[in-house]
Amino acid sequence: MVKCAIVGATGYVGAELCRLLTAHPQAEVTGVSSVSFEGQRLCDVYPSLRGTLELPLTDEDTAIRGSDVVFAAVPHGLSEALAGKVLGQGAAFIDMGADFRLEKEADYTQWYGGRYENPALHAQAVYGLPELFRDEIRRTRLIANPGCYPTSVALALAPAIRRGLIQTRHLVIDAKSGTTGAGRGLAQNTHFPDCNEGFGPYKTAQHRHTPEIEQTLSRLAGSPVSVTFVPHLLPINRGIISTIYAPLAKPLPQDAAVALYREFYAGERFVRVLGSGETANLRQVRCSNFCDISVHVDARTDTLVLVSAIDNMVKGAAGQAVQNMNLLFSLPEETGLTAAPAPF
Amino acid sequence: MVKCAIVGATGYVGAELCRLLTAHPQAEVTGVSSVSFEGQRLCDVYPSLRGTLELPLTDEDTAIRGSDVVFAAVPHGLSEALAGKVLGQGAAFIDMGADFRLEKEADYTQWYGGRYENPALHAQAVYGLPELFRDEIRRTRLIANPGCYPTSVALALAPAIRRGLIQTRHLVIDAKSGTTGAGRGLAQNTHFPDCNEGFGPYKTAQHRHTPEIEQTLSRLAGSPVSVTFVPHLLPINRGIISTIYAPLAKPLPQDAAVALYREFYAGERFVRVLGSGETANLRQVRCSNFCDISVHVDARTDTLVLVSAIDNMVKGAAGQAVQNMNLLFSLPEETGLTAAPAPF
Amino acid sequence: MVKCAIVGATGYVGAELCRLLTAHPQAEVTGVSSVSFEGQRLCDVYPSLRGTLELPLTDEDTAIRGSDVVFAAVPHGLSEALAGKVLGQGAAFIDMGADFRLEKEADYTQWYGGRYENPALHAQAVYGLPELFRDEIRRTRLIANPGCYPTSVALALAPAIRRGLIQTRHLVIDAKSGTTGAGRGLAQNTHFPDCNEGFGPYKTAQHRHTPEIEQTLSRLAGSPVSVTFVPHLLPINRGIISTIYAPLAKPLPQDAAVALYREFYAGERFVRVLGSGETANLRQVRCSNFCDISVHVDARTDTLVLVSAIDNMVKGAAGQAVQNMNLLFSLPEETGLTAAPAPF
Amino acid sequence: MVKCAIVGATGYVGAELCRLLTAHPQAEVTGVSSVSFEGQRLCDVYPSLRGTLELPLTDEDTAIRGSDVVFAAVPHGLSEALAGKVLGQGAAFIDMGADFRLEKEADYTQWYGGRYENPALHAQAVYGLPELFRDEIRRTRLIANPGCYPTSVALALAPAIRRGLIQTRHLVIDAKSGTTGAGRGLAQNTHFPDCNEGFGPYKTAQHRHTPEIEQTLSRLAGSPVSVTFVPHLLPINRGIISTIYAPLAKPLPQDAAVALYREFYAGERFVRVLGSGETANLRQVRCSNFCDISVHVDARTDTLVLVSAIDNMVKGAAGQAVQNMNLLFSLPEETGLTAAPAPF
Repeated sequence: MVKCAIVGATGYVGAELCRLLTAHPQAEVTGVSSVSFEGQRLCDVYPSLRGTLELPLTDEDTAIRGSDVVFAAVPHGLSEALAGKVLGQGAAFIDMGADFRLEKEADYTQWYGGRYENPALHAQAVYGLPELFRDEIRRTRLIANPGCYPTSVALALAPAIRRGLIQTRHLVIDAKSGTTGAGRGLAQNTHFPDCNEGFGPYKTAQHRHTPEIEQTLSRLAGSPVSVTFVPHLLPINRGIISTIYAPLAKPLPQDAAVALYREFYAGERFVRVLGSGETANLRQVRCSNFCDISVHVDARTDTLVLVSAIDNMVKGAAGQAVQNMNLLFSLPEETGLTAAPAPF
Repeated sequence: MVKCAIVGATGYVGAELCRLLTAHPQAEVTGVSSVSFEGQRLCDVYPSLRGTLELPLTDEDTAIRGSDVVFAAVPHGLSEALAGKVLGQGAAFIDMGADFRLEKEADYTQWYGGRYENPALHAQAVYGLPELFRDEIRRTRLIANPGCYPTSVALALAPAIRRGLIQTRHLVIDAKSGTTGAGRGLAQNTHFPDCNEGFGPYKTAQHRHTPEIEQTLSRLAGSPVSVTFVPHLLPINRGIISTIYAPLAKPLPQDAAVALYREFYAGERFVRVLGSGETANLRQVRCSNFCDISVHVDARTDTLVLVSAIDNMVKGAAGQAVQNMNLLFSLPEETGLTAAPAPF
Repeated sequence: MVKCAIVGATGYVGAELCRLLTAHPQAEVTGVSSVSFEGQRLCDVYPSLRGTLELPLTDEDTAIRGSDVVFAAVPHGLSEALAGKVLGQGAAFIDMGADFRLEKEADYTQWYGGRYENPALHAQAVYGLPELFRDEIRRTRLIANPGCYPTSVALALAPAIRRGLIQTRHLVIDAKSGTTGAGRGLAQNTHFPDCNEGFGPYKTAQHRHTPEIEQTLSRLAGSPVSVTFVPHLLPINRGIISTIYAPLAKPLPQDAAVALYREFYAGERFVRVLGSGETANLRQVRCSNFCDISVHVDARTDTLVLVSAIDNMVKGAAGQAVQNMNLLFSLPEETGLTAAPAPF
Repeated sequence: MVKCAIVGATGYVGAELCRLLTAHPQAEVTGVSSVSFEGQRLCDVYPSLRGTLELPLTDEDTAIRGSDVVFAAVPHGLSEALAGKVLGQGAAFIDMGADFRLEKEADYTQWYGGRYENPALHAQAVYGLPELFRDEIRRTRLIANPGCYPTSVALALAPAIRRGLIQTRHLVIDAKSGTTGAGRGLAQNTHFPDCNEGFGPYKTAQHRHTPEIEQTLSRLAGSPVSVTFVPHLLPINRGIISTIYAPLAKPLPQDAAVALYREFYAGERFVRVLGSGETANLRQVRCSNFCDISVHVDARTDTLVLVSAIDNMVKGAAGQAVQNMNLLFSLPEETGLTAAPAPF
């Protein structure tokens, strides 16, 4: 059994990690920490966990002691020091936040503020998107778990970029996220009567996931790629859909596009490429680690439209982290992640 | 591995059975039938099941062939003949509908119309509420899986009735169900714009679950019990809450009430009795087999208020059926049902 | 034109008053005050009001100067002093909170804490439920606008109590409110991902509206009436439904019950008594001042079931206040309140 | 008083017209027709209208007799013959559907099937978007009321196209609509449990509003414009947001973009151009005739992002029709349309 500690367990990502890890046949949660709720049990904060996980919330050091892997779900800027400590204790480290995602410190400074205090750590960090970077993940102990939006975008665009189907100018990403993406903290725009039956973009073309998206796309393309990225807040709990628009490099029949995508993701358990005439929808991936991708050629305007649907808390956060953990510990990659989506 | 067939697999109950059984470590789904969608695959109707369960939908006879247990999710009136056939093939039968729930044919005729064609079958049928009738369940091969509302009510009232805490007159049950309880069939009151942001009772004091509720309560009380039962339609997907009002037999301190309930359900994995000051809520049981019960003494009016929360599709249907299956096949009762609720 | 000032204009009740008063043909909003947002415009806090009402938010004294009527939407305990000031300036006062609703100071002290500093003011206050107390309303300048739950309950039970249809023991009120009832302030239970797709009671048998409900019912009955009152939080924006259970005094045919209710409310513009076979639902009253009541005789248990649906922000708050204002200023009672409900 | 008849009154657009017209100080609804519900009253189908509009539903000829204006909310293909009849009776005709929106019969045939039987009628028809084509509207008696998506798109792009701010290639329109846009008819994708908590595109790059959008943009540009248009279904009742992406023609400062938009729409009551740093959201326009537009310059990618929010049933259908009616009858354009949006 892999001994798992979660630092910052009372946020939504922490709670979702607990949901998944308590159902994982080869993992156990051995420590959970919280600054705000230390001394209470996690199931006092999340009563859904009563009878499943009744650990007390401790301080960070107590939580991580003796663990094989530490998941850090803490505000950005706090993971770097923690990573050093965890690796020093011989455990693996999976960071749920942004501290290790950006290769260039300048990008981090520009979008998040702050500096890289320990460049050697950053050199070890691997961007944990298994479908694209599996081999590197297996060789490290320090994972930067990808952001939710970037996961949905990178999986959707990777085949198109790698196979040269599209131009990489005028890339438009119109993304929509459920409210769990905003976390457990209270805010006016997620106050129920203000949020419910409302809808709109936020941080238009200014969201911090932009450089992370561009970094991955640029790496896939082998040259710099810029995107216009506009996230929207959906009045639902879970899920991210990214609808992506890219000018075709040359005419492409609809069925050929689907075939190329299916070939690219052949053998991938968690990526489901839909057929022509089908459309990805959040209802098909709820509570699961699947990423559904539908591919649409708009021959009228020579545009490729990609739709990518994930559960933001699973494939977009906790599920992908478990997938990474499985790789780190040489377990079958799908272990603990095979439950079918909740159909309603 | 227990070989499971589902007759009527394309309704919501069928889909939920598939979600649970595909995650069950000692069961496999070997047949699924549908009248409306025969020839398609189940995952064409429920794309969420792609990659998890891709069986073709067949006719009934093909689906049940070679199975160890058959779950029947068919309109009432159709289970009786099917049960005879299944038992004749040596398999167990779990009826998700109402055909075998009512002991008195007269009740069935009054509330559902129709007759009992095969009384011998009804004599074998056991009402499958494990927490109350576990021993009987273990001794049969024909289970009447309880209704969703009756499950929530019987679990809430059993301790109060068995321990003589309440009078059994003026019993009021105000229940609220998510929309999956109405099934997959289209109707104006579950059309999204008509249902969303609306709320109200339906079938006020006329719902067919009334005799089933009264049958169980009467059995627990040892004398006839009548109830006023009013269900409401909640504009959410999953869950049933029953708020139950009963005149106290004599004054009862709040903490004593909780203690009695906890003693009654000691050792029960799926019933969680909340503490004084806590209140059951659907958000704590979502997608799980738990029944959360909170107990509230209103000393001002000498009334016991009970709140009982279940996921209508799990403890109120498919989960309870799996629990019954586990009992029938001498598996640990919680097998396949231990996943924590989805916290959001 | 009646000059209206709103003290505490940035809460939900204040915003709803502005929505209604800006559409009122014989009223104008001349002042709005806010402690938290003084100096901004109301339409900065509620951008929906851009182009309709762009008044600056001022302090209280500035807002009320020169007004004919002041609506106070302030935390309880703050209205008493304000009422004295407003009446002293010759304006009428409509209190949206609880300060003047309870006749007995002891009740106020028990449920809200605090004292009545100025008993003479309380002697002038009239409980502003026009359908029941219209004549008194016309004769005062100080209105205690009723609570949302109490409005829905009193209108539903008044005919049954006045006509002696029910016993007044074992009265059960199971009420459900949309989230606007909890106000604009942030709280975990109205945080979108915690609230959405959840449901349950709160303040079970302990809600502060209990004494207000009992006061009105006792007055209608001419003797003390106690109730078991359990409110629930609905994951929708607007509306309150109260489902009320009362033992019948003697057998009563369904159609006779409806006829009695229709006779009782004959000529009342805002109370719609539904026919036998119909059921009140929040979707029929949204954004309107209607109270829909459906009447159901459960002959099996000799119980009268009443269902009462209002928009909590209109008939349960701002609309009723405007109705009271119309009475105070001898305008036709329905002025500004005739817009049909939003059907979806 | 303008006498108004509504043909096809029991659909959602018909119901919304009734909500608006019964609140209009210079209009009265004198006839309502329905094929499916003839003989019932409209308020039997929409109980929200009880006490407000209790007209019987008749056949078409009875409904339109004696009216000054007829609103036709009928399936496409049925309006042409009706328009001829209405104009022949001397009344004005406002078509809520697509029959008169497309200037080129070939476009109609391609996207809707069917032919133009009476070209002379089409020559009279004016596309009823008052902010852009007010003068023409005043001179006709036959209005093609615009589609919901096209209204939101044309208002957002008109200033950018007219002022030459953007290139008209690579235009991407990512639109999201509430479920009322799909109408009252039952369908699986608007069945509550299937729709709720789900989200995704539909008719990707194949929606029938595409040629209508392109027709207006081409007219504004003076040359052919093509767009990639992808609508999505939002699990809410009301509203359309279009997020529109256009390559800038040349660099444009954020504040200059806002200033140009404000200048373009100066004096327009129903278009609200938001300031820099503000973002349009459906919650601000609910139940109102406003179109909120926010303008965002993405200087990183030289892209103009426009966000346009309307209530699809008001500015996107019934409200705009009333606005057109006001123009036809020389009433102040905002008559009956000044109610503030519902803030929650």
